[in-house]
Amino acid sequence: MERIDSVQNSRVRKWASLHQKKYRDQLGLFLVEGEHLTEEALKAGAVEEILTDTPRDFPGVPVILVTPAILHKLSANPSGTHLLAVCRQKTAAVTARERLLLLDDVQDPGNLGTLIRTAVSFGFQGILCSEGCCDLYNEKAVRSTQGALFALPVVRTDLAAAIDKLKQDGVRIYATALQQARPMQQVPACEKLALILGNEGQGMHAELLKLADERIRIEMDGFESLNVAVAGGILMYHYRRK
Amino acid sequence: MERIDSVQNSRVRKWASLHQKKYRDQLGLFLVEGEHLTEEALKAGAVEEILTDTPRDFPGVPVILVTPAILHKLSANPSGTHLLAVCRQKTAAVTARERLLLLDDVQDPGNLGTLIRTAVSFGFQGILCSEGCCDLYNEKAVRSTQGALFALPVVRTDLAAAIDKLKQDGVRIYATALQQARPMQQVPACEKLALILGNEGQGMHAELLKLADERIRIEMDGFESLNVAVAGGILMYHYRRK
Repeated sequence: MERIDSVQNSRVRKWASLHQKKYRDQLGLFLVEGEHLTEEALKAGAVEEILTDTPRDFPGVPVILVTPAILHKLSANPSGTHLLAVCRQKTAAVTARERLLLLDDVQDPGNLGTLIRTAVSFGFQGILCSEGCCDLYNEKAVRSTQGALFALPVVRTDLAAAIDKLKQDGVRIYATALQQARPMQQVPACEKLALILGNEGQGMHAELLKLADERIRIEMDGFESLNVAVAGGILMYHYRRK
Repeated sequence: MERIDSVQNSRVRKWASLHQKKYRDQLGLFLVEGEHLTEEALKAGAVEEILTDTPRDFPGVPVILVTPAILHKLSANPSGTHLLAVCRQKTAAVTARERLLLLDDVQDPGNLGTLIRTAVSFGFQGILCSEGCCDLYNEKAVRSTQGALFALPVVRTDLAAAIDKLKQDGVRIYATALQQARPMQQVPACEKLALILGNEGQGMHAELLKLADERIRIEMDGFESLNVAVAGGILMYHYRRK
């Protein structure tokens, strides 16, 4: 088993650079921490190498023994970790399917990760993120997915162009809106649908809302305010494949 | 208008102590930041005094002009704020109503705040938090409520004792569970119901689950994992008063 002892080692510096989006994008890699996420990454075949402070075997993947100080430097958790996996970013395309989720400038990593986790739980088959969404490979976003990130294709793309293409392929676009929108219970599901959710503060871009086939509102008691991950959960539950 | 210039002023030190739960509890006070939360606190009559760096009038409430340095010291936001309200904690009791939310050791302040916001949006009338829940007056929890905190009674209490009392008053207890639970669509609402949600990692305490009249599961596609605020949103939407 290979072994690295110095926090100044050039590979340790490379891995540490993955805390920044710029280097994650350049290298096409990101870090995940802990047993559960590492296991999900292994199942998905996404692991490039594993770093641990305790000799262990992970069949088919290079394991590197490192010091607790190195793991501490690489961990986003103040109390550190014993296991880190360097993972490859996704490159799969998202094409027309029965259930897709489209995210228009969702800013908060916790919301993004939670939406990915929820999408998998309700059988959604792919996620398209606008260029203005927060980075999918941000540590908090990855952690909030609870591993669901590895279970479906997620890509960053120009949403307007993607919507045009999806519509040509028979996908109907369902958007949430507060005005000129029908109550969710009155809008039935269809064979192929893509659900768009907007930014936490600003909602959805008007240009995208215009492209929607259906404008939907979640029936509420007055406060008219839901967190985007909660709204997404209610919508994905309602429109899940049955 | 009263004016304070020194960050060493004893009242500034008192307000700064409100960043810690211990002093929030001792003083029965907490801080909110920014226009929107201050406005909601004012509407609810919960404001003790307002601190601002720009002379402004808020009828019926003492306004204290302070320096930007003082606001920076008191703000939980790294970029500071121009407006802070010192608010009184809630003391109202939560009694039997048509829709109540019970939270068993919800740990994450963002989840707690989001659940309060969602409860108000779906017409829930009160929230009971177990002693093991994170502090309701934690800055992140308050911020995540988006002001909904001021719209309904929320109390911290012994949940088992509260459930006994609610049952005597005709409230049925609905709990989420993964095993021996009926799909949500098969469990109708009733006149008075209280919904219990559990801890993020451990779920609900077994003793509380035993007290439930209904055990419910949200129908899923396999991943069997939802964030507690998302699960709460789906349940509260389904069981809202119509």
